[in-house]
Amino acid sequence: MKAYPELVQKLIAALKKLPGIGPRSAERIVFHILKEGRSEARELGEILIKIGESIQFCKRCHSISEKETCAICEDATRDKKFLCVVETPKDLIALEKAGGYNGLYHVLLGVLSPLEGIGPRELGINDLVKRVKQEKPAEVILATNTNIEGETTALYLTKVLKPLGVKITRPARGLPVGGDIEYADEATLARAMEGRTAV
Amino acid sequence: MKAYPELVQKLIAALKKLPGIGPRSAERIVFHILKEGRSEARELGEILIKIGESIQFCKRCHSISEKETCAICEDATRDKKFLCVVETPKDLIALEKAGGYNGLYHVLLGVLSPLEGIGPRELGINDLVKRVKQEKPAEVILATNTNIEGETTALYLTKVLKPLGVKITRPARGLPVGGDIEYADEATLARAMEGRTAV
Repeated sequence: MKAYPELVQKLIAALKKLPGIGPRSAERIVFHILKEGRSEARELGEILIKIGESIQFCKRCHSISEKETCAICEDATRDKKFLCVVETPKDLIALEKAGGYNGLYHVLLGVLSPLEGIGPRELGINDLVKRVKQEKPAEVILATNTNIEGETTALYLTKVLKPLGVKITRPARGLPVGGDIEYADEATLARAMEGRTAV
Repeated sequence: MKAYPELVQKLIAALKKLPGIGPRSAERIVFHILKEGRSEARELGEILIKIGESIQFCKRCHSISEKETCAICEDATRDKKFLCVVETPKDLIALEKAGGYNGLYHVLLGVLSPLEGIGPRELGINDLVKRVKQEKPAEVILATNTNIEGETTALYLTKVLKPLGVKITRPARGLPVGGDIEYADEATLARAMEGRTAV
């Protein structure tokens, strides 16, 4: 029996390690590369090597960065009174795309999840506490996800940050813009009614 | 608004070009690499660059190969009386895994598909005709898929190869081994009845 050439087997094995790629998709990608994407393969390969070398986590906010400190942390026009805590750099980007927020960020790179062995130490919550003590923001916005892990993490952060005397807020929860009341889930609807605002 | 660092954007763009990877999965892969897979990234990058340089299509059978001629074509123990035509190197590997066939292969690297602009020239069918004329196999097995494109391609190949006086066969079609008659589709069942064999 003859299998794939060794390099092809290695490539399939390496691709399979990535999230969302199984053996079938790995094979499909390999044949795509062999058939049409020689130069694409070289390009992708070079980017991957460079990424491994140059991308790091900002030492101040833990977001991804090409330098020791990220562009947002270095931006003097950012309002240092606000510190927004998010779970991942993806959340940070989503908030930046939405616009309207001009403060700083702190990225946890995860959520508390005892079952997966992710506790306060893994999220570097000590670093966050230290940062709040040092930089003394007026308000810390806990923009973790609104699922169980996110809420738990927010609760925990409230507990450790409150004693520092900082104002702690969470983004408003309610009906999504453009959403139908008819189709909103019960928890969201209850939350939206509870948090109703005067017009 | 701040977006991802340039290298991350480039990596997302390069990943999105691969089949089966959309913007979301590309982002997920990037964060997986940044968070856990620095060394994986370097390894994958190096393999991709090497693949682009060293993997080629065998000049005789058009399968993927690390040398000009692939291991099967160079294997003297292979029975040169049989030539099995398949659509892709994946089909070749599947047949090799199944065992039982010890002849040579010819890989079309596609199927006839006029809508996608894939005609006999794109599949190098001239090369196949030339090869059959030169190597004079006793039998050509058309192991293209049993879907419309595969059948069309087999039909076309029969038309161009028949005049060379070579015996042309197709793999048997019928009930899959381990399959239930109850769940077989009508076309397969009709085919299985038609091709019934004496016991």
